[in-house]
Amino acid sequence: MTPPPAGDGEGSRPRVEGEREQEIFTATLDVLADVGYDRLTMDAVAKRASASKATLYRRWSSKPALVIEAVLSQKGPREVPDTGTLRGDLLAAYCGMGGVTDTRQMRVLGALMSAAARDEEFAVAFRRDFLRPKEAKSMLLYERAQQRGEIAEDVDLELVAPALAGMVLHRQFLLGENPSPELVTRIVDQIILPAVGVRHPVT
Amino acid sequence: MTPPPAGDGEGSRPRVEGEREQEIFTATLDVLADVGYDRLTMDAVAKRASASKATLYRRWSSKPALVIEAVLSQKGPREVPDTGTLRGDLLAAYCGMGGVTDTRQMRVLGALMSAAARDEEFAVAFRRDFLRPKEAKSMLLYERAQQRGEIAEDVDLELVAPALAGMVLHRQFLLGENPSPELVTRIVDQIILPAVGVRHPVT
Repeated sequence: MTPPPAGDGEGSRPRVEGEREQEIFTATLDVLADVGYDRLTMDAVAKRASASKATLYRRWSSKPALVIEAVLSQKGPREVPDTGTLRGDLLAAYCGMGGVTDTRQMRVLGALMSAAARDEEFAVAFRRDFLRPKEAKSMLLYERAQQRGEIAEDVDLELVAPALAGMVLHRQFLLGENPSPELVTRIVDQIILPAVGVRHPVT
Repeated sequence: MTPPPAGDGEGSRPRVEGEREQEIFTATLDVLADVGYDRLTMDAVAKRASASKATLYRRWSSKPALVIEAVLSQKGPREVPDTGTLRGDLLAAYCGMGGVTDTRQMRVLGALMSAAARDEEFAVAFRRDFLRPKEAKSMLLYERAQQRGEIAEDVDLELVAPALAGMVLHRQFLLGENPSPELVTRIVDQIILPAVGVRHPVT
């Protein structure tokens, strides 16, 4: 897919920003939820947003760039939780995953998982801009637990940090279960905490 | 997608079986690897296999049915390992996942993950015919460990049985890592065995 010629009058057109940008992000996520990543085209997004394709290409050089920015725009200003215990932090960070019961959001997430498993260009950008930052936040929770002496120095954090997300996403997208806070709590108490050597508090 | 009219002469046509069936399965997986599940059509498979669409529909009533049978046809007669220890069984069962380095097979697997996350009709059949039997095999390994007294009676097997596959698939398809036997071994020794209360042997 090559961008259309930029055309003239470039300097006179307003930049895409603010509310207009949000409208384009919303249109992108709508199209993504409807048809999936494979079949999403810049054209379809432009139509849905009543924008021109040239406008889109002036701001986003490629389909992965547009989709990933649209997805990132939806995340609230989620801070890394700091409750004082690893268990509290993990529950605060991951129980929200079960909040995704709204169908559109599930379809958007499904489309992202799909595209990451199939489309290498998308996967590279998605890992760099979306998954790695999430993993870094997860890592931070474990590092703070290590600094507090809650978990041992020799726990292999690189192995443990993505584990909870892996188990939850697997149950959600492959096994088709609702990752309820109760399920996340069981995984934390029965798999993650024993693995890092923290006894779970309710015995 | 409705099947084309069956036409006449139905009784005189040979059933699809044996080698011809394998050719159609191979064609199905080729198309799946090339274009993904969304864009796979019975038409494209028929063309690739030099068969008529009517022939396909006489044997497989729908696209999910054809795709899932094709995938199941590729699995070797993999027995459930029985090495005498949970660790041995898990390594025997899961280290093979890292053997999938061939690109076509990776693309097929990616297409299945994708479709399961997006297409509810496919997901239901895929879970029932592909994932649940795999989960049942995994469960059997843990149940035998419980019967041997290797793990405690109160370990929540329903929680643990899908955990290893979840972590490995997440690292493979989302994080883009090669799930080498070494990685699988680290996950077994550092996460699964501590969770079920088995100390890992190398200390």
